[in-house]
Amino acid sequence: MPEKKPKGDSRETEKKLVNLGNEVAEQINKLKNPDVTIPVRALSNIFFDEKSGLVKLGQKVSHRTYMNVAHTRKFMQSLMVAAECKKIMNQGVSTSIRDLYYALKRTIPGTQENTVEDQSESDPVIEDLEATLNTLREKLHLKADRKGYVVGPIVIRDTGDRIDCSKMGSSGWAIPSNVEEEMIKFEKCTADFILVVEKDAIWQRLNEDKFWKKHNCLILTGKGQPARGCRRLINRLHKELKLPVYVCCDADGWGMYIYSVIKQGSINLSFLSDRLGTPAAKYIGLTTQDVEKFNIPKNVTIKLNKGDIKRVNEMLKYVWFKPKEWQEELKNMLQVGYKLELEALSAKGIKFISETYLPQKIQEKDFLP
Amino acid sequence: MPEKKPKGDSRETEKKLVNLGNEVAEQINKLKNPDVTIPVRALSNIFFDEKSGLVKLGQKVSHRTYMNVAHTRKFMQSLMVAAECKKIMNQGVSTSIRDLYYALKRTIPGTQENTVEDQSESDPVIEDLEATLNTLREKLHLKADRKGYVVGPIVIRDTGDRIDCSKMGSSGWAIPSNVEEEMIKFEKCTADFILVVEKDAIWQRLNEDKFWKKHNCLILTGKGQPARGCRRLINRLHKELKLPVYVCCDADGWGMYIYSVIKQGSINLSFLSDRLGTPAAKYIGLTTQDVEKFNIPKNVTIKLNKGDIKRVNEMLKYVWFKPKEWQEELKNMLQVGYKLELEALSAKGIKFISETYLPQKIQEKDFLP
Repeated sequence: MPEKKPKGDSRETEKKLVNLGNEVAEQINKLKNPDVTIPVRALSNIFFDEKSGLVKLGQKVSHRTYMNVAHTRKFMQSLMVAAECKKIMNQGVSTSIRDLYYALKRTIPGTQENTVEDQSESDPVIEDLEATLNTLREKLHLKADRKGYVVGPIVIRDTGDRIDCSKMGSSGWAIPSNVEEEMIKFEKCTADFILVVEKDAIWQRLNEDKFWKKHNCLILTGKGQPARGCRRLINRLHKELKLPVYVCCDADGWGMYIYSVIKQGSINLSFLSDRLGTPAAKYIGLTTQDVEKFNIPKNVTIKLNKGDIKRVNEMLKYVWFKPKEWQEELKNMLQVGYKLELEALSAKGIKFISETYLPQKIQEKDFLP
Repeated sequence: MPEKKPKGDSRETEKKLVNLGNEVAEQINKLKNPDVTIPVRALSNIFFDEKSGLVKLGQKVSHRTYMNVAHTRKFMQSLMVAAECKKIMNQGVSTSIRDLYYALKRTIPGTQENTVEDQSESDPVIEDLEATLNTLREKLHLKADRKGYVVGPIVIRDTGDRIDCSKMGSSGWAIPSNVEEEMIKFEKCTADFILVVEKDAIWQRLNEDKFWKKHNCLILTGKGQPARGCRRLINRLHKELKLPVYVCCDADGWGMYIYSVIKQGSINLSFLSDRLGTPAAKYIGLTTQDVEKFNIPKNVTIKLNKGDIKRVNEMLKYVWFKPKEWQEELKNMLQVGYKLELEALSAKGIKFISETYLPQKIQEKDFLP
């Protein structure tokens, strides 16, 4: 089968893979101990970059060498993953990280040793490779888990098909795992802003009420913590179409953490923050201060437990929750002693969120930074 | 706001709700103790109906009366849920079961008592109401969780929008939570059969390889255990379009259980089996017998643990696994002592499943019943 040249940015990634292989081969030819340099992805090498507003990876690197008993297995796995990625790229296909694990798994001839024992061995090697090559898994033709939906006035091109996200009925456009430029193109968009909602039930409520039509916006949900594809899509929509991003989550530690990951990136994938984070995002709600503001009945709030209180106290110390509006909100949560979910707004009527709450927040620009 | 009349089948459900309310009101007017009759949804009232090939609910009923301290709370909740469903139907909207819980939650005036304490109280009441009225949650305008995707030569009408599932790029059509006739219409379909795959990663592999084009079929995934919408869609596609259904799961207890739920229905939702089950479905794989048949390397199989062995021994006794082909497969699993996942086929090459495994199974009609 003739080798296929990957398209667009993946071509650059293929070159990086070839370079990696060539460097190792060169070291071997010179009878040197083969050595691959890998950025350290531990908390000790992570910092919040005030200028960009992103969680970033520092400069520390570690070496993975072949002639070191503690490294040999991982060294072999790193090169196997790199070689398999190049192979699937040249076949013009892509695959899941679970498939990759199975494709690599074999017993080394003449031994009882398997190349990889389970997926928890191959997954971190993939993340190391992404960090080393400064690339995305998607550009290595690997698929992450996907979830999330979009509705609103945008036309997408996906592998040739034209998808009008304003004509997708009750289900919306399903966000694919790979939303890179070579797969997903934005053909036309007339929206004024992007509303990201934590929960699919809220997304369905807003879609049924045609909120996106009345307020001329895109509505996205990541169904809980958004998958990489969803975060990357928000990042691209903001960067390329210059759309403001408003995020709507539960008024609890988990909801606010989801917001921070969309905005600043995550510690785990800090090497990808500039591609997955959207620092210009704003928090539209829910907050505990909304309870008084919108006269929400107290019996739909949920009492903070010990874990919640510990979590809020941690959040108070995070650099990215330092702005005074966030400090006020977090302290208010501790003071009133409760959290609440977006569905709690239903106590004011099923359509309260789409007809009163969100429109008022948007009109008054009542956002947290 | 004027009352909206629900469309199609939901109109019938609305009538049933009104009848339920009228009956209770009549009992009160006659100074009788109000009483609602509810089918017993316990294992003791469930049987496998050989004729239809479905798990079904028996004839046992229980009474929920107002003037019985053990029933009063549930009686109130049942009528509250029924009243709220009628209200949202007449508003022409639908809502999630979580929203319903929040919409009902309030403190009863003059007491410290809440109408519902948490969602685990309202959810079973909804299922009771479905069973009592012999209707679907979707027809009560309640939304279940949704997941799953479809690709292939079918054109869908969803609330007026025309969705061509052969032109949905890499993501496919996202299956909505409500796929009842009044929401989802099948406008045109030229497929020869339906392939249901347990895992989204396999769905993506098959979509990327355009398996549905080469083999003229629809490919569906429920992403693990399918949600109600997905099971109902398979049921409708089979019944209305007369398409054969082949199901492709992991060769383990969980995968085979997913198959049995798609085929016979589930114990929990036995009162809905004729709407959610598809008894004509056939099992295309994966089986442990495929390991020899397709020469799959043994190191990608997974050793059965105690829990697996217990599970297989239970399955051997289930009526629906009594056919000799299933007995052979389950006994083979115990004998070889391993299970395996669909991704294990990747050890034979990334495209092995789409180019060799599935085509051969279909051509040889190598199915389990």
